[in-house]
Amino acid sequence: MTLAGQLRRRLRDVVGDEGFVDSAAGLRVYECDGYTMEKALPELVVLPANTDELSRVVRLCHREGVPFVPRGAGTGVSGGCLPYEIPVMIGTSRMRKIRRVDIANRLIEVEAGVVNLEVSRQVEAAGYYYAPDPSSQSACTIGGNVAENSGGPHTLKYGVTVNHLLGIEMVLPDGEIVRLERTNDITGYDLAGVFTGSEGTLGITTAATLRLMPKPQAVTTLLAIFPGIVEASRAVSAIIAAGIVPAALEMMDALVIEAVEAAYRFGFPPDAGAVLIIELDGLEAGLEELCGRVEDACRQAAASEVRRAANEAERALLWKSRKRAFGAMGRLAPNYCTQDGVVPRSKLPQIVEAIAEISSRYHLRIANLMHAGDGNIHPLVLYDDSNDNEAERVVAAGHEILTACVKLGGSLTGEHGIGVEKIELMSKSFSDDDLSAMADLRDAFNPTGLCNPHKIFPTDRACIEIKRPRPRGGG
Amino acid sequence: MTLAGQLRRRLRDVVGDEGFVDSAAGLRVYECDGYTMEKALPELVVLPANTDELSRVVRLCHREGVPFVPRGAGTGVSGGCLPYEIPVMIGTSRMRKIRRVDIANRLIEVEAGVVNLEVSRQVEAAGYYYAPDPSSQSACTIGGNVAENSGGPHTLKYGVTVNHLLGIEMVLPDGEIVRLERTNDITGYDLAGVFTGSEGTLGITTAATLRLMPKPQAVTTLLAIFPGIVEASRAVSAIIAAGIVPAALEMMDALVIEAVEAAYRFGFPPDAGAVLIIELDGLEAGLEELCGRVEDACRQAAASEVRRAANEAERALLWKSRKRAFGAMGRLAPNYCTQDGVVPRSKLPQIVEAIAEISSRYHLRIANLMHAGDGNIHPLVLYDDSNDNEAERVVAAGHEILTACVKLGGSLTGEHGIGVEKIELMSKSFSDDDLSAMADLRDAFNPTGLCNPHKIFPTDRACIEIKRPRPRGGG
Repeated sequence: MTLAGQLRRRLRDVVGDEGFVDSAAGLRVYECDGYTMEKALPELVVLPANTDELSRVVRLCHREGVPFVPRGAGTGVSGGCLPYEIPVMIGTSRMRKIRRVDIANRLIEVEAGVVNLEVSRQVEAAGYYYAPDPSSQSACTIGGNVAENSGGPHTLKYGVTVNHLLGIEMVLPDGEIVRLERTNDITGYDLAGVFTGSEGTLGITTAATLRLMPKPQAVTTLLAIFPGIVEASRAVSAIIAAGIVPAALEMMDALVIEAVEAAYRFGFPPDAGAVLIIELDGLEAGLEELCGRVEDACRQAAASEVRRAANEAERALLWKSRKRAFGAMGRLAPNYCTQDGVVPRSKLPQIVEAIAEISSRYHLRIANLMHAGDGNIHPLVLYDDSNDNEAERVVAAGHEILTACVKLGGSLTGEHGIGVEKIELMSKSFSDDDLSAMADLRDAFNPTGLCNPHKIFPTDRACIEIKRPRPRGGG
Repeated sequence: MTLAGQLRRRLRDVVGDEGFVDSAAGLRVYECDGYTMEKALPELVVLPANTDELSRVVRLCHREGVPFVPRGAGTGVSGGCLPYEIPVMIGTSRMRKIRRVDIANRLIEVEAGVVNLEVSRQVEAAGYYYAPDPSSQSACTIGGNVAENSGGPHTLKYGVTVNHLLGIEMVLPDGEIVRLERTNDITGYDLAGVFTGSEGTLGITTAATLRLMPKPQAVTTLLAIFPGIVEASRAVSAIIAAGIVPAALEMMDALVIEAVEAAYRFGFPPDAGAVLIIELDGLEAGLEELCGRVEDACRQAAASEVRRAANEAERALLWKSRKRAFGAMGRLAPNYCTQDGVVPRSKLPQIVEAIAEISSRYHLRIANLMHAGDGNIHPLVLYDDSNDNEAERVVAAGHEILTACVKLGGSLTGEHGIGVEKIELMSKSFSDDDLSAMADLRDAFNPTGLCNPHKIFPTDRACIEIKRPRPRGGG
């Protein structure tokens, strides 16, 4: 599909030169997201400055029957914004206004292109913060967070994006601007809820109203060292079974520890088989007792050591090690592919075993990073793109891991979405009837299918399967 | 519409004599729900014993093109299960199995007819409970809770039904049985989320998997007495502004206090203008400090007295007074109509003023019960059905109150739904485009419109408006 010159001119008129990208070098920036196994170039990228411009762009595409795909910061890791057979990419990176800060009612309204961490910065002085904290929070934007229903380490206690979303402004696939409120409970169907996590297939979020949370009075962050991942999993179950809900409960295995220690020199013991990062927050008064109970649970699960972050600097370094673990993986292999699956918490030991078996069968090293308290695993499959066929093996191993998750009663994604990456796996989780019910829902809002086609659902893919490149490693 | 004898026989074959109601006396039980201003008789009521029977009933209705309406315990208060122009009512009261209790993964799966409070009873000994606690929790059932996305006093801290829902089994309007999981995060669209709060217009919930919560280590319940409702509202704002999230924060005004004191003799002071019931929970250690801060906030907002429930018995009596306040209203007037609206917390004084003005203009006494921490108001409009035209005035006054809520930036319902009661008001909250987007969503799952027609949306009503009875008071 090649765009007519007239449409190009009209789009350029709407967004101006500053918001129009069609040079080869300029487009290269937009050829993939954090899921680097696949790439595709859009014909052009438009970057509207505000909701009105974005709506006009969508109206033009709708009128001309031209497919379009929304893109936030491109930190997604399932290829949700890849432009296969989609000429026009609509980026929200210029829409960065803070529209409203209302501390009395504990809410903030920001445009889609505002960076996640910036939201907390805006209200920090008043003692508040925005809870969902993806590892990419210093780069990812609120529009993408809504599209993916993003979580993060603190999801365990505080929930994901939809739990903190009080309303969205969005542009429907025909260009209409709508505001969907949840500020004061939900009247009629929960449309804002439907759109959250719909991966850009129902429209484009242009602004969101977010719940602000008061910063906890006190926070303690523990690091527990274990001989292996099975022992650490046992500690996770013991902590939860004791009725304790930590703010975060994260696991890293030996390979991840090796990489982050080389990168950030936190001081992880070189022989650690696995570590848990356990954060407890709440009132000062009760916290000490709670820490004691968590430490006991870890020791009973064979922890060799449990440390507390001595001060804010040490706590920050520990979290940096965890949140930037992805970046550190480059020290172990030229390429890696992050997987994202979920199992019931009580099945963590089984999935770890299954991953080890898959790792050895495929001759691929797999590092394990987990939001363990949620049962949300992030196996990182290490590889070298320059080796023949290795990328294909990575994809196959990833699919086996996710299939094992589903077999254990879990699911295909905790927080990264389906995108293009897991389309073929949807039929393992859902019957044809389930999928067709979802397609009916999509058609209710996106009847032309022009808004981010070929995502999530296997049904639409057949026609482009042949054009989709073979998997290959990315930068 | 009169049902053909053949369909009657087939339905009877499916559910057996025990599950088939068509006598005049038997049907009378099903003529209204807790919204007693309107009534309608179904032609027959079927009570399937399990999901399979329910599915077969729906398949028969679907095949014959006969409208049907689901009904839980009939405790709803917006007429969501009223059978206007709907011959077949499908009740879930016989579906009361506890299917699965999984303490390790903190979940329970129950059938739709299980009573809300029974869920907590099942897991009490293990130290757990189910958080959403509508005032009707000793009677209302989980299927109805899902349909209405029910809340309760503890919604402030713990959220509503959808925040505790890990999956549903349901029968779609064509009779198909589907299971929609959220146990391990959400893959694809959040269909279980869409169905929650859809008031029985997208299908019939047959079972639900619910999140269990560990009982808090300690609970303290405070009663603060104020000269009037404005002072009490000020205390609400002050508590929230201090960064404290009570487990519950409830308000009752002088009229409600008068009624509940007469009924339960808790010992409310006779001259109290308003009271707050404030419950704090969490770790033992921090609670005392928190209580002190709440007490200070109340005194600074002119509370004449702040008491603590001395023991579990006193706490239980205080909550009984609050939760059964509805029942106690009969001491003040022969009839009452409960309203349900929401305003931003900071607008509580304004809505209280607006209600007082409406009360005096309509010559109707209005008592105020509120989930104040949520800004969720429940004005109780008192009246006498035997007075000419009084019921009509009650409906008009209720509509004025809700319109005032919307004008203050609030909404038409916090937790009771739209049902038939508020259909005419939907256009005050939503544009035609918004409503048509919702109708598109409904049509995706309920294309024939046979499943609970004439609810929520104004569009379908015109044809039956003339047949709808004039409002009148109920038992």
